[in-house]
Amino acid sequence: MTVKENINQWIDENRQAHLAFLQKLVQLASTQGNEKEVQENVARFLKDLDLEVDVWNLDGERLKKHPYFYSNRETFESSPNVVGVLKGTGGGKSIILNGHVDVVPEGDHEQWDKGPYSGEIVDGKMYGRGVTDMKGGNTSLMIALNAIKSLGIRLKGDVIFQSVVEEESGGAGTLDAILKGYKADAAIIPEPTNMKIFPKQQGSKWFRLIVTGRTAHGGTRYHGVSAIDKSFIVTQHVMELEKIRNDRITDPLYDKIPIPVPINIGSINGGDWPSSVPDIVELEGRIGIAPNETMEEVQAEMEQWLEKLAEKDGWFKDHPVEVEWFGARWVPGEIETTHPLMSSLIDNFKGVVGEDPVIEAAPWGTDGGLLSQVGGTPSVVFGPGITSLAHFPNEAIEVEKIFEAAKIIAATIVDWCEIE
Amino acid sequence: MTVKENINQWIDENRQAHLAFLQKLVQLASTQGNEKEVQENVARFLKDLDLEVDVWNLDGERLKKHPYFYSNRETFESSPNVVGVLKGTGGGKSIILNGHVDVVPEGDHEQWDKGPYSGEIVDGKMYGRGVTDMKGGNTSLMIALNAIKSLGIRLKGDVIFQSVVEEESGGAGTLDAILKGYKADAAIIPEPTNMKIFPKQQGSKWFRLIVTGRTAHGGTRYHGVSAIDKSFIVTQHVMELEKIRNDRITDPLYDKIPIPVPINIGSINGGDWPSSVPDIVELEGRIGIAPNETMEEVQAEMEQWLEKLAEKDGWFKDHPVEVEWFGARWVPGEIETTHPLMSSLIDNFKGVVGEDPVIEAAPWGTDGGLLSQVGGTPSVVFGPGITSLAHFPNEAIEVEKIFEAAKIIAATIVDWCEIE
Repeated sequence: MTVKENINQWIDENRQAHLAFLQKLVQLASTQGNEKEVQENVARFLKDLDLEVDVWNLDGERLKKHPYFYSNRETFESSPNVVGVLKGTGGGKSIILNGHVDVVPEGDHEQWDKGPYSGEIVDGKMYGRGVTDMKGGNTSLMIALNAIKSLGIRLKGDVIFQSVVEEESGGAGTLDAILKGYKADAAIIPEPTNMKIFPKQQGSKWFRLIVTGRTAHGGTRYHGVSAIDKSFIVTQHVMELEKIRNDRITDPLYDKIPIPVPINIGSINGGDWPSSVPDIVELEGRIGIAPNETMEEVQAEMEQWLEKLAEKDGWFKDHPVEVEWFGARWVPGEIETTHPLMSSLIDNFKGVVGEDPVIEAAPWGTDGGLLSQVGGTPSVVFGPGITSLAHFPNEAIEVEKIFEAAKIIAATIVDWCEIE
Repeated sequence: MTVKENINQWIDENRQAHLAFLQKLVQLASTQGNEKEVQENVARFLKDLDLEVDVWNLDGERLKKHPYFYSNRETFESSPNVVGVLKGTGGGKSIILNGHVDVVPEGDHEQWDKGPYSGEIVDGKMYGRGVTDMKGGNTSLMIALNAIKSLGIRLKGDVIFQSVVEEESGGAGTLDAILKGYKADAAIIPEPTNMKIFPKQQGSKWFRLIVTGRTAHGGTRYHGVSAIDKSFIVTQHVMELEKIRNDRITDPLYDKIPIPVPINIGSINGGDWPSSVPDIVELEGRIGIAPNETMEEVQAEMEQWLEKLAEKDGWFKDHPVEVEWFGARWVPGEIETTHPLMSSLIDNFKGVVGEDPVIEAAPWGTDGGLLSQVGGTPSVVFGPGITSLAHFPNEAIEVEKIFEAAKIIAATIVDWCEIE
């Protein structure tokens, strides 16, 4: 048997223990601020495999200095990161395997058919908050590590497994791992791509537009200038920018995606009295950032575009729209489709699944953007589970896919890091 | 000397006492819920004139049954209405003189050059919250009554002086006076028209429009339907209704008014997350009601118009805009421009001021709408003071105009009620 056949056989023979482990991870409800216990379980798993294990609470002071830091918290007690390093014998390429353990809140329990933290398996699917996003993918990574170690496979390059927090809230977990020095030649992130391979991912940035009018009594509204009317003009103007930005994207990976990097106006709030002309409206939204763009470029483009409003409507000359860049941001990322990690992943997918993988651009962001743009670690996103179930009641994952992904990833690690 | 000359002379000779009385009214800060003391002063003034005085707390139970009742309170202790009746000798036409004593809050004291309840007089202007809106006008009425009584003028028709509460908060004071039975052949309301005569006044009604979309993630916004985008279509549609409604108005009184009965969208609120497609937006606004319309007609017209949205955009077929009629309403009102009270007022204006009065349609509503449409008492609005100062810091009135208005109104009462 080849090494890869050995790996596949070992994974098939050790399903139950890994399913039980995943079930345990799901049952340890790890919403923001409550990740400690699940991380202790992950660390124990890695120690049992004899990896070099690093457990630390994120460093708020270090993070705050970084321009891409975003979080709704500044202290991170009870929310440790865990990294386990399988040191290579030397001379090989290193790889980061990155997954997050924080899960979004389960919401209304009434809407769940199973308990939201039950980890119950019915008809080949495990149910629970976070099982798809992304404890299932994390388990695939740990199965792959377990297989490699248990089979005594000695790799030349380092494998750096990262179990991070805060992905759902701005990426501070991965950012702090990078700032602590964890980098590699490439990375795999098993977010729920439904087994598709995503070499590119859009980033995004939140903005707030403040549109000014002039108030007046509603009964003589013609003496005022409605900030609501002006906000419609601003919205149309912003949608023209969306078109210009997307027309530029010729990457065939985006051929099937109607709008590769959408601009979305998510909220509008203005005026406080039915009988008054509103003098201020705030629009909040997100602008998609193409994989090859930086956030700074996109911010500058949008700010310059908004200045052009004065050419369309003289009002904006004296009352320019204010832009605030606030809240969350997701850094975009890309790996060349011809990158050797991609080739290996595609080959191993064919080997395990027996057909060609679907290769697409991700419509959403992951911590892969930080790994790529801050950590200099090109990242590919590939994992089991379906996004459309993430964040919703009755989140579930087809367990078979967890093992398929584990086999594909283990084989790719072996190719990438090389056997001694 | 004629009777009117006597009145004018008497008013000129008794300026100081009346200014002191107005000053006292201003100093008794009568914001909503705090009108009792000012009303006691008014009642004492009327009793001293030997009028039949009626002081009562509004009847919440009686009011609540009326479709036009609107208030943010249901009990009215400490907020009495005061009516003083100067009984005629019989055979003459009766008149209501209506003014409100409630004032809007004074706001930030820092923005006032004088104390907001000082009643200080500087350069011929008295300063204070409510001095223009409308204790100055009320004082004109009381000066007129005092002149008539003091000069021993005996009228055939009844003069019904109403000092009401709640005008600033929905008109419950005047409505309760009507429901208690106070009606007359005509009415004068000395709101601050800057000495213009307003025979017609627009009414208005508040509405809330609920616009529905379908949510999606902002990164794939093309899977959703933005309720913000749909709300722009709704707003444009509503503005078309404004045009249709105003094109119908051919009354020359509106010739100089750009939009006789505006529709104003006063607030917009929707969406709760920058990265989500918003699925609900609420618009709140007011629709102007022409003097000859009823609120019910206008509500029906707007509801039918909104149903037409489905013809413009199929989305609204399955997702019709919901309309809620909430909060405040101001009943419109009109008196024929050829009405004998109008002719008398115009003549007496010329007699006192020496020039023709400006006759216009009011851009705002008063309690005259309730008097007209509920009380069957055609009402004209005419008084001293400038609207643009009402509700703002440094509210003030030119005291000379108070006496001019008193002379014009006293002469008009004499004409209308006739001397025995």
